[in-house]
Amino acid sequence: MRILVTGGLGTVGAGLITELRQRGHHVVSCDLQHQPDEIGFSLRTDVEVPLYARCDVGEFRQIERVFERCGPFDYVYHCAAEFGRWNGEDFYETLWRTNAIGTKNIIRLQERFKFRLIHFSSSEVYGDWPDLMVETVMDEYEIKQLNDYAMTKWVNEMQIRNSALQYKTETVVVRLFNTYGPGEYYSPYRSVNCRFLYCALHGLPWTVFRGHSRTSTYLADTVRTLANITNNFRAGETYNIGGTDLHTIEQLADVVLKVTGADPSLVHHQETEILTTKLKRVDTSKSVRDLDHKNSYSLEDGMRLTADWMRSVYRL
Amino acid sequence: MRILVTGGLGTVGAGLITELRQRGHHVVSCDLQHQPDEIGFSLRTDVEVPLYARCDVGEFRQIERVFERCGPFDYVYHCAAEFGRWNGEDFYETLWRTNAIGTKNIIRLQERFKFRLIHFSSSEVYGDWPDLMVETVMDEYEIKQLNDYAMTKWVNEMQIRNSALQYKTETVVVRLFNTYGPGEYYSPYRSVNCRFLYCALHGLPWTVFRGHSRTSTYLADTVRTLANITNNFRAGETYNIGGTDLHTIEQLADVVLKVTGADPSLVHHQETEILTTKLKRVDTSKSVRDLDHKNSYSLEDGMRLTADWMRSVYRL
Repeated sequence: MRILVTGGLGTVGAGLITELRQRGHHVVSCDLQHQPDEIGFSLRTDVEVPLYARCDVGEFRQIERVFERCGPFDYVYHCAAEFGRWNGEDFYETLWRTNAIGTKNIIRLQERFKFRLIHFSSSEVYGDWPDLMVETVMDEYEIKQLNDYAMTKWVNEMQIRNSALQYKTETVVVRLFNTYGPGEYYSPYRSVNCRFLYCALHGLPWTVFRGHSRTSTYLADTVRTLANITNNFRAGETYNIGGTDLHTIEQLADVVLKVTGADPSLVHHQETEILTTKLKRVDTSKSVRDLDHKNSYSLEDGMRLTADWMRSVYRL
Repeated sequence: MRILVTGGLGTVGAGLITELRQRGHHVVSCDLQHQPDEIGFSLRTDVEVPLYARCDVGEFRQIERVFERCGPFDYVYHCAAEFGRWNGEDFYETLWRTNAIGTKNIIRLQERFKFRLIHFSSSEVYGDWPDLMVETVMDEYEIKQLNDYAMTKWVNEMQIRNSALQYKTETVVVRLFNTYGPGEYYSPYRSVNCRFLYCALHGLPWTVFRGHSRTSTYLADTVRTLANITNNFRAGETYNIGGTDLHTIEQLADVVLKVTGADPSLVHHQETEILTTKLKRVDTSKSVRDLDHKNSYSLEDGMRLTADWMRSVYRL
């Protein structure tokens, strides 16, 4: 298959590309940064079929160029997005441009070129929903999103739904739950797993909010399930992709201390964080059924492997 | 009171400014175009207190400049927005930048300067809701918006709600229903009333979609109710501002033919339009109770006055 992965330099995008290429697909990717082997002006004569293009999906001409230079594609995995709740609040201009306008750009190209789209949504669309997060919750109950990042992801799902109704475009939506693993470089806006590990490995003090429970999904499990979508593509479906074991944020901190051997006095506790759910419990039975989704790494195993990777990339 | 009206050159904004000034308020406005008496470099010495600033609300520095040069304000009426369903689909980049980012800019300034905000939402947020549109529908039922314009307006309401929760900002949301009247210049994206009248007065053929019912609100009624908000500002409230008499789009076309005397053969009928509601019936009892909302013009009277205005501005 000919596949495009937008956001190919991101944590999930990069892992997915590796998995898809191992399965024999022709995979092109794009992202914001320049790369040594990108499409474009170059003195090199060894890159016959470039597999990377610099592209801001929020700029229509740039993403159209990727299709003109590297297309056509059978599937597009649209991973490119501004990521994270507080990132979205601090950089809301970029958030709305990349996520709402960028995804609309992809949908407009889909209406023209008719590729099958896999769109990356987030557990954040469930907003303040207190119970088990099943894919159909939003078809039955009134949900309000608690931050602009969550809103962009829900907007994307409605944009996709309206395009399917009006233009018969074929899309599968995946809602990722707290995915972490090798390839996730630290910033203050990354997954809580990444931030805790980074602080512990660097001997930096950090804050743990009490009273929140989450699941975690190890990246290798996520990307295998994502790659399986091309084997059983069901247009119009939405899948939760997440972990099964619920843990508190305090328990996650304990695992981090264990796999890093960091000093427990680095951990500082604070009361509940505002505008985020207390509990995120996910029903993954649909992705298990259709996409053979598996959680094959325990939290401790996954965190240990991620810590090893971090020690290596940060030369600790 | 010191009041800012964003989108002051728009149909509702311009009418509102006139009403507020008649009531003795100090009213500053901003919009995208230059104006003869705007703030800025000028050779004129007669404009001591400029009451207009050029400003794109999607650019933070430009809207911040309005506050620095003309503030502080007790109230801000935030009318500035990209307007209309098909406008939003054809110009979605501008839609998201102006409506989602622009309103977030206003909210960020509100968190800093603590003015009271009146935000302009739309009946479009009710999406595919088939029954009576009461303000609380979205707190009780699952609604999906049918186009990007509707999504931006619903996003704004959630942005406002989250800011009120986190920063105690004070905002009233008004949801306008099909407002028309003198001051609405024709474009293909304006209200159906404006478009029908324009075609009829210019002898142009036009399409009427069958099977849709709407109410219409005459601009003078809308702006009186809007101006009343400063007399009874209840932070956190949402108000429908609309008409009481339901009419089909076919009936509206008949009224247009009557008040213009246009040739009935100009009207062409088509079946139901996609991605819009069949029926929009609005409950205005709350704006009647709190804001003394009145519908004092019949559809025929309002359309006749609008036709008179159009004949004058288009020199017919």
